[in-house]
Order: sequence, then C-alpha cells, then structure tokens
Amino acid sequence: MPLFTGVVPPVVTPLTASFEVDYPSFTRVIDHLLDGGVHGLFVLGSTSEVVFHDQAARRRIVEHAISQVNGRVPVFVGVIDPTTDRVIGHAKAAQAAGADAVVVTAPFYTRTSQPEIVDHFRYIREALDVPVVAYDIPVCVGTKLERNTTVTLAREGTIAGLKDSSGDDGNLRYVMADTAGLADFFAMTGSEIVVDSVLAMGAHGVVPGLGNVDPHGYVRLWNLCQAGDFAAARKEQERLCRLFEMVRVSLPRTSPGSAGVGAFKTAMRRLGVIDTNIMARPQRPLNDEEASVIEGILRQTQLLS
Amino acid sequence: MPLFTGVVPPVVTPLTASFEVDYPSFTRVIDHLLDGGVHGLFVLGSTSEVVFHDQAARRRIVEHAISQVNGRVPVFVGVIDPTTDRVIGHAKAAQAAGADAVVVTAPFYTRTSQPEIVDHFRYIREALDVPVVAYDIPVCVGTKLERNTTVTLAREGTIAGLKDSSGDDGNLRYVMADTAGLADFFAMTGSEIVVDSVLAMGAHGVVPGLGNVDPHGYVRLWNLCQAGDFAAARKEQERLCRLFEMVRVSLPRTSPGSAGVGAFKTAMRRLGVIDTNIMARPQRPLNDEEASVIEGILRQTQLLS
Amino acid sequence: MPLFTGVVPPVVTPLTASFEVDYPSFTRVIDHLLDGGVHGLFVLGSTSEVVFHDQAARRRIVEHAISQVNGRVPVFVGVIDPTTDRVIGHAKAAQAAGADAVVVTAPFYTRTSQPEIVDHFRYIREALDVPVVAYDIPVCVGTKLERNTTVTLAREGTIAGLKDSSGDDGNLRYVMADTAGLADFFAMTGSEIVVDSVLAMGAHGVVPGLGNVDPHGYVRLWNLCQAGDFAAARKEQERLCRLFEMVRVSLPRTSPGSAGVGAFKTAMRRLGVIDTNIMARPQRPLNDEEASVIEGILRQTQLLS
Amino acid sequence: MPLFTGVVPPVVTPLTASFEVDYPSFTRVIDHLLDGGVHGLFVLGSTSEVVFHDQAARRRIVEHAISQVNGRVPVFVGVIDPTTDRVIGHAKAAQAAGADAVVVTAPFYTRTSQPEIVDHFRYIREALDVPVVAYDIPVCVGTKLERNTTVTLAREGTIAGLKDSSGDDGNLRYVMADTAGLADFFAMTGSEIVVDSVLAMGAHGVVPGLGNVDPHGYVRLWNLCQAGDFAAARKEQERLCRLFEMVRVSLPRTSPGSAGVGAFKTAMRRLGVIDTNIMARPQRPLNDEEASVIEGILRQTQLLS
Repeated sequence: MPLFTGVVPPVVTPLTASFEVDYPSFTRVIDHLLDGGVHGLFVLGSTSEVVFHDQAARRRIVEHAISQVNGRVPVFVGVIDPTTDRVIGHAKAAQAAGADAVVVTAPFYTRTSQPEIVDHFRYIREALDVPVVAYDIPVCVGTKLERNTTVTLAREGTIAGLKDSSGDDGNLRYVMADTAGLADFFAMTGSEIVVDSVLAMGAHGVVPGLGNVDPHGYVRLWNLCQAGDFAAARKEQERLCRLFEMVRVSLPRTSPGSAGVGAFKTAMRRLGVIDTNIMARPQRPLNDEEASVIEGILRQTQLLS
Repeated sequence: MPLFTGVVPPVVTPLTASFEVDYPSFTRVIDHLLDGGVHGLFVLGSTSEVVFHDQAARRRIVEHAISQVNGRVPVFVGVIDPTTDRVIGHAKAAQAAGADAVVVTAPFYTRTSQPEIVDHFRYIREALDVPVVAYDIPVCVGTKLERNTTVTLAREGTIAGLKDSSGDDGNLRYVMADTAGLADFFAMTGSEIVVDSVLAMGAHGVVPGLGNVDPHGYVRLWNLCQAGDFAAARKEQERLCRLFEMVRVSLPRTSPGSAGVGAFKTAMRRLGVIDTNIMARPQRPLNDEEASVIEGILRQTQLLS
Repeated sequence: MPLFTGVVPPVVTPLTASFEVDYPSFTRVIDHLLDGGVHGLFVLGSTSEVVFHDQAARRRIVEHAISQVNGRVPVFVGVIDPTTDRVIGHAKAAQAAGADAVVVTAPFYTRTSQPEIVDHFRYIREALDVPVVAYDIPVCVGTKLERNTTVTLAREGTIAGLKDSSGDDGNLRYVMADTAGLADFFAMTGSEIVVDSVLAMGAHGVVPGLGNVDPHGYVRLWNLCQAGDFAAARKEQERLCRLFEMVRVSLPRTSPGSAGVGAFKTAMRRLGVIDTNIMARPQRPLNDEEASVIEGILRQTQLLS
Repeated sequence: MPLFTGVVPPVVTPLTASFEVDYPSFTRVIDHLLDGGVHGLFVLGSTSEVVFHDQAARRRIVEHAISQVNGRVPVFVGVIDPTTDRVIGHAKAAQAAGADAVVVTAPFYTRTSQPEIVDHFRYIREALDVPVVAYDIPVCVGTKLERNTTVTLAREGTIAGLKDSSGDDGNLRYVMADTAGLADFFAMTGSEIVVDSVLAMGAHGVVPGLGNVDPHGYVRLWNLCQAGDFAAARKEQERLCRLFEMVRVSLPRTSPGSAGVGAFKTAMRRLGVIDTNIMARPQRPLNDEEASVIEGILRQTQLLS
C-alpha cells in the first residue's frame, strides 16, 4: 500500500489586515477541511504562501496545524526554500513539531543540474527521520524533476512520494509505470482540473489548492474514482472546473499567483471560513467587484444558494 | 554625482570542507579585493552563494565584512530571498550592521506582476534608512525588471541604483537615457565580458564575479574607460574574456551555477587567496583535472607565471 | 455529430536513399493504416515532415494519398508554412486535389499576437470551401492557441475542429466545455500517451504519430473508450506507452525531432511497411544499434514475435 | 580583409493596398538606401517580410533589387525557409539572379540539434557557388547558433560571415575572438541600438532594420567608429535609439513583429519613400494615431523639420 493516499489539500494560511497569521481563521480552515473529509493536510505548500513566511512564522504555523489536527489525518509540511541546508533547517523543525512527511522542491534561484538535484534530495533525506515527498513545480522553481531523477530517488528510497504540479501528465504516467513495483511509493497530482484523468491513470491522490474552497467536492471526486464510476467522476470534475474559473477573475490586473490564492481566499471569506482575503506582500488582493464575480461562480457551482 | 561608482565585486564566500564559512579565508578575500583597488564590495550577492545562507549566517558574514573593510570602501549587502517581508528582515539586519546600501531582486518562487514588483521595492524602501539598489537577474528570479518598472522606481527615489545582470544591454541603455537627468542615480552592469561597452554607453560601474579572481584587471579596465582610452580598455577586456573562459571548464559535468562560482573559487585557491574550492550543497566542486585546466588559464592570462 | 471522429494518424512520408518520396512505400503505409482500421488520414502533418517538402512535392504527395485512399476514409491535409497567404496557396492546392479538410497552425518565424492569429484563420477560411482544422503545436510554432482564440474561431464557424498537440489537457478541457454546444465541432488530441484520458474527457479523436507503427492498437484503444471500458483502454494505452519509448532511443545523439520520426520510420522498416528509415535533411537517421533497440521494443509490445 | 563590411540594411519590401509588391516604391527604397551611402543591401531579410513571400514572389523581388542596384553595392539575399532542401531551392534561384551572398538561418518549425544545424549549413554550402552567411535569430527560429557551431562552420569555410541578431553580444565577442585569425570572415550585428558597442568590439558591419528609415544615420555612425571617434559615435547612436522608440508605438495593440516593420513602413511613408504602410497578412498596420506619434519621433530626431 502506498504510504499516503487520497485528497490532501495545501492549506490556505489566512492573514489579518496587518499581515499576521489569523489563527482563529486558520483553525476554521483546518476544521472546514477535516469536516469535508479530506485524507491529509499539506501545510506550507505554495497555496499556503510558504515562501512569504520566515523560519519562526513557519514553526508557529506548523505547530498550530498539527495541534489542531491532533492526529485525525496525516500532516505533510512544505519545507520550501532555495537550497539544501536551509531546507534541512525547516525540515528538522517540522519533524520536531510532529510532521508526518516533509515536501521538498528542487533548489531555486541557484541553477542546479539533475545530478545536483538528486544529491539535494539525498542530503535532505539523510538528515531526517520522516518521509520526504518530492514536489515538482517548474513554474515556481524553473526546473523540471526529470523522469529519471524522480525514479532514481524513488527506487533508492530517498523519496516516499511525488507531488506533481508540472502539468506534464504524460511524464507522470511514465514515472508511475517505472515505480509501479514499489509498494509504498505514492504519486499525487497538484492539478485541480484533470484529477479524474490522473486518478484513472493510477495516481494515489490529489493536492488541490481549490480543495480549500470545496473539500467535499474533491472528496466526492476521489470516492467516485475509487469506486470506478468515472462517468460520475467526470461530472463532478467538470463542476470543479467551473469553480476553478475563479482563478482568472483578477487577471491581468494582478499576477497569476495573486489571482489564484487571492480567489481562494476571497471565496473562503464569502463562505465564512476566514475573515479577510489579504495575502502577504506584495501580492494584491481581489477587489469588491472581483469578489462579486466570485460569488456568482460559487452560486453557479452550488456552493452558495 | 551618482551615489556609487566603479568596480564593486560580489564577494566570494569561502567555505571549509565542512561547509562552514572560512573566516580567515574570507578576510583574505576582502584584503585581496581592496589591495586590487576596488571601489566597493557587494557582500552576499549571487556569487557569494547568498541563498545558501540562512539569516543567522548572513548576519555573521555581513558583520565580518563590514568590520574588516572598516570604512575603506562602501559595502553593499545583498538581501536576497523570495518575498517582501523576508527581504525587509534581512535588510534591517544589514542596516543595523552598517551596510551602505542593500541590493534587492524581484520576488521569486512566487509569480508577481510588474506593478506588484514596484510595490515590493516601495515596501522595502519605506522600511529602511539605507539606499536600495535594484538587482535585475532574470536567470535566477525568472522575471525581468522591465524598463518602465526600473525607471518609475528611480524617478520616485525608491531605488538609488541598478545592478543589471540581465544581459540586455539595449534595455539598459534606454534605462540610462531615461534616468540621465537623475543626478545621483547609478547603473552598474553585472557582466564580466562587455564591461568596456557598457561603460562606454555611460554606465557608472561594474559588479564582476570574476573580479574576485582578478580585481586589478577590472580596476585597470575601469581606469582606462574613465580616461577615455577605449582601445586599451578593449585589450584589457579581451584578456579578462580569456580569463572568464574558466566558467565553462566543468560544463556539462556540473550545473552552470556550480561551474561559475566553482571556477572562481578554484582559481582563488590556486592563487593562494582561499583554502578550498568547496561550495554550499548541493553544488559540485571542480575536480583536480578541471583545476589543472584553470591553472592553465591563469597562466595564459598572466595571473600565474 | 462532430464532423470527424476517431483515429486519424499523421501519415509518415517514406523517402528513398536519395531523399525522394518513396511512393511504393507510401502506398504500403496508407494500406497498412487502412487495414488497421483508422477512421481518417492526416497527410502532411509534422510527422510527415511537411515543412521539408516544397509546394510541388506536397501536391504530388497529396494527390497520391487521395488517389490511394479513394474515398475509403476522410483525408485531412496539413497546409503548414509560416504565413497566411502561403498557407492559402497550399490549401487551395489541397482543396483542388480533393482534401476533406485542411489543417492550419498559427504563423511561425514571424511573431504574431492572438488577434492576428484570429485574423490568420479568418483569411484562410474565407479563401476556401473546405473545413479548416486548427492545429495547436507551440513546440514547433512558438505560440499557444489560447483558449479564447480557439473558442472564438469555433463559435463563429471559422474552424471546424482542433488538433491539440500542446500537451495542455487542462486547457483542452476548457475549450471542449466552451464548445460543447457546437454540434459539429470536434477536438482531437495529438498525444500518443494520454489518449484514454483525453477521450474520457470527451475528445472526439486522436492524431497519433505512433499510429503509423501500430494503427490496430490505437483503433482498439478508441473502440474500448467508445464502449466505456476505460479499464481495458488503460491497459492498451499502457502498452502503447511502452511502445512510445522508442522516441527516446537515439537521444541525445539526434534531435528530438529526428528521434521521434526516425524511430517511427525505423520501426515501420522493421515491420516491412517501408524500405528505409531515411528522413529529409538535415535530420540524422537512427543507426543499426538504435534500430536493434527498437526491434526489442517491438517484441516487448507484441508487434513482433 | 573581411569579404564584406559596413552598413547593410535589410531592405523593406513595400506593398500595395492589395498586398502585392509595390515595385515603384521598392525602387525608391533602394535608391534611398544607396543615396544614404550604405555599403550593401540585404534583400529578403526578416524586416523584408521574407517568410510571407513564396518562391515565385521572392524571385521577382531579388531580380528587381539586383537589377536596380546594378552592381553599385553587394546584394545579400535571405533564403529563409524551414528546412535544408527548401533553402537550397531559394539559394539556387538567388545565385542565378546574381546574389553576392545568401543568408541562412537554422532550421525552424522542426526541432534540430546543433550537429544537425552544422550539417544543414554544410549541405547548403555544397550545393552553391556563392558565399553563405549564417543568420543567428533565435527569436524567430527558436534555436541559438551556439558559439561552437558558428566557429566550426567559419573555420572550415562553410560560412563566410555571421549576422548576429541574437542580442547576446558576449557570445558574439567570443565568436569574433575565435575567428580573429580568419582573414576574410566577417561578423555583423543585427542590432539597431548597440551598434557603436559592437563595432568597438571589432565587428565588421551592421544590418539595421532601422537603416531603412535613416540610412545616413547608420552610415555616419559607421564612419565615426571607423575613425575611432567613439564619443561622437555614441551621440549618433543615442539619436538612433530615440528614433528606434518607434517600434513600441503600436504595442500591445499589435504584435512585436507588426510593431517593428509597421513602424519602419509608416516612417518611410511619411518621409515619402513608399506609398503605404501595409504589411503582409495577418500583420496589422499602424493606424493614424500611431502614425502621428511616429511623425513626432521623426521630428525629434531631425528627420523631419
């Protein structure tokens, strides 16, 4: 059995108007997700605005999340920073706080080769006792985890799983074929919009940012795929695709980064889960007019009546 | 007069075999550069492996450098991390340590728009009392500082200068034309190999990684350009171009990042300035065979006899 | 009903050792595909090395193909060249020869905007009486057909269908949702390796280069998807994925372009369909050692015993 | 001595309102350039909209140009199409028409490797009796001519010269150093805005699209550089940079391609050289408001009083 499976949303980190973590809202986000039936949480992912938080802030976020989850589901912790030893620093703190796994990208800002990326994961794994999940997100780090890199790390046991946000599902399929014989290795997709497809290919889970807005929807989608009812899964996925249109509402006024997380926060505010749609600086929040378009999308997708 | 001018090398950060900063070697690097006649130092630039050092390590590096320089030349400090408030954290520490200016890139990992980048610099400037220098390095951050972004920031006084490592000298020329009326604004190039050209266009300085290996060469080049002797400057530049061939010696065995800084460190070790050619993990150092090629290059360019 | 559906391989153009079209082999390719049960042919696609053939050569290829097919299935003709009026020239020739549809990319070499691309398709459509199929292949032309561009062209009737070789299946899903109300519009994928997924999303066909090697396989895959047996479809797709490994055999000795078409030709030679694995200049053919690896792949995937 | 030197503008191809070549205007363009003192003409370059013209149209354009020039200066002919044998077809026609050299890019649309690009140039050279000039324009073809590719071709005599429109002047400098011992090899830049710099580095000429608007300016710039008066050259270059601002006037309403050639044609129309500012389809011409901005630029740069 793969180590972890199911719906594991990257948890939004709510902020106050003065850019502090809003812990009461954060507690509500976690409860909202667990009430939605998700199978795990990914704290401090890209959707959590991880790179906006320094080491001290990250520690508080992780401790709060693990305390609030209280063992109900596994907690993955993103340990995302440019280079190996800084990642190890974050990862040791996450491990000490009780993380079930840490999630690691390729180095960024610095330009590394695939063999150096392999070394990066090995150094991190050697320094830890918790499982390491590779996070392939070229749009943020500028480098793809090549098939051979991922498969090498999986076969030797350096990584326990993969979160693939590369959008290259053909490559993911080859990685899954190459690792099919590894009983506990898992591959999850970071996509919101082709989840039914990637689960049908054999993926073990999904890490959807949009799951913050509609955890029930992704859990339904997961259950339908598990039951082999791909026709119904497709209908649910298509509803979630309509919901995902929210990430385009503020384009091109804001950057794609602000447009995505900003839309999720705006929708969660409207749903009463969090108090503000503020993002860390210099990201620009959605304005009232955009919030109103998002409200319309929530109605069209049965999240508001 | 522009606030700063001349040769301002990004200072290499020497490491021990156990990946600690080698402070005795670091002291020698600083003296080597000041003996070479440079006009300023840029501590914690890309060539300094800045993103490999956490906040505590950076503070020690900056304090050591400023103490060792002891006011002989201005010290710029790179405050390079993905997002606004983390940069402000580094910048306040640099300011407290006595930095003469801080050097700031666009956000990275997160995807921001040009207006958000403008905000990023404004927030940082508002939080500080020292001048802010914009650092345009798309190869590392994935975003170009567009002409209009840089010029807006310069005109309103948010940035005091520009370090341009984008390789787009045509764009730099337009930025310099647009800011020609700003008496104290300065534009420096991060190039090692077209310095004579960019100075002839009117740039106010150069920030050459290769200046760690041959500070005298870049100071000679600067002086020749100041004197208007561009024919002699071209000859010196061409010698420095031959020296710069060292950055290709370990390609493709290592990444371009490791190949560049690794070559500088290997050359500096051979010249007796530092003790090892170790770089921070996961970068792979040059091997003995590659070191021997670099020794040959040092001989061909009159740095070894 | 969509205008065209099913498996429509881009037909390989066999060459002699002196780089002429090998018409006896070409006839065998067509019969091999029709015997395989394909639902249409796409002559002069990228896999056909279309851009290597001038106007006169293309005309002979099209006439031969249409004559040999003799109405048994529809024939799409690629009319691929950099700019609008040159495309119209090819398209009028294809129409005169009896093409059932022409397949058109965005302009290339020249850099056009999305509104200019819309105009490009409109000008071409106005000049013709046959349906126009948009071909989205950013890896060759350097530009993506954006969702809004494709949907605008579909809604106004300028294009009758889309061949999507962009690899962006999420975008394709949105295009299909936006055009779901257009009864005769069709969307096909150019993928070889996620065909089951894209058909499950609702695509109307597939244009697989690998279909030249194993048309029966793709027809089986299509039939299984039509029957809703996605579990069996997945198994067939996974066998085809193993077969598709052939496109990596000569990398990095040759370019990706030569590696792909070269592998298909090498496999088809081994299967007795064509006489040489020669490609148009300057592409480098696979060598004997690589051919032997490909033979192994054919055995592992039950195409050779 | 290098085979060719000096100012060699890529000649604009004027069109009528019905998209035919406007030969009376074309004659005036050629005379305007020769009156401006240019040292050669580059017919059918990117600025000439070469890829919009088919084989028959190109032949007429070349014949007209060569007849009109009548031996007063050398005529380079661009033979730009995606693949080797199609290029050879154009090149033989150009040779038959009396071209002094043909200008060849890397293959495009198809994805070739550097060794295949080397072969491409060799096959073309073997088929011809006129000199071949390599044209490095990655923005159009998607591939850079790497230093080693260009230098290999230069040393073995396959190419007689280089037109570098890559914007990578550092790489150009290395190519010039590597080929310094080849007496007749020449390197020209395609830049409009750093010509003084590249000539100061030792380049043998310039191929400026903007030279269509102001040939006298580029000839003055060339003469000043030849005389070693780089201070005056810089002033002239800076005036030409202000003139070059015209290429941004219609952005983002049109594509960068249309914005550039469209601005040149609009300026030439205002200067009385050509009759329309029409470009080949699907390029969008500048409108009256944009034409008026361009008129202002012509006044500011002393081309109109």
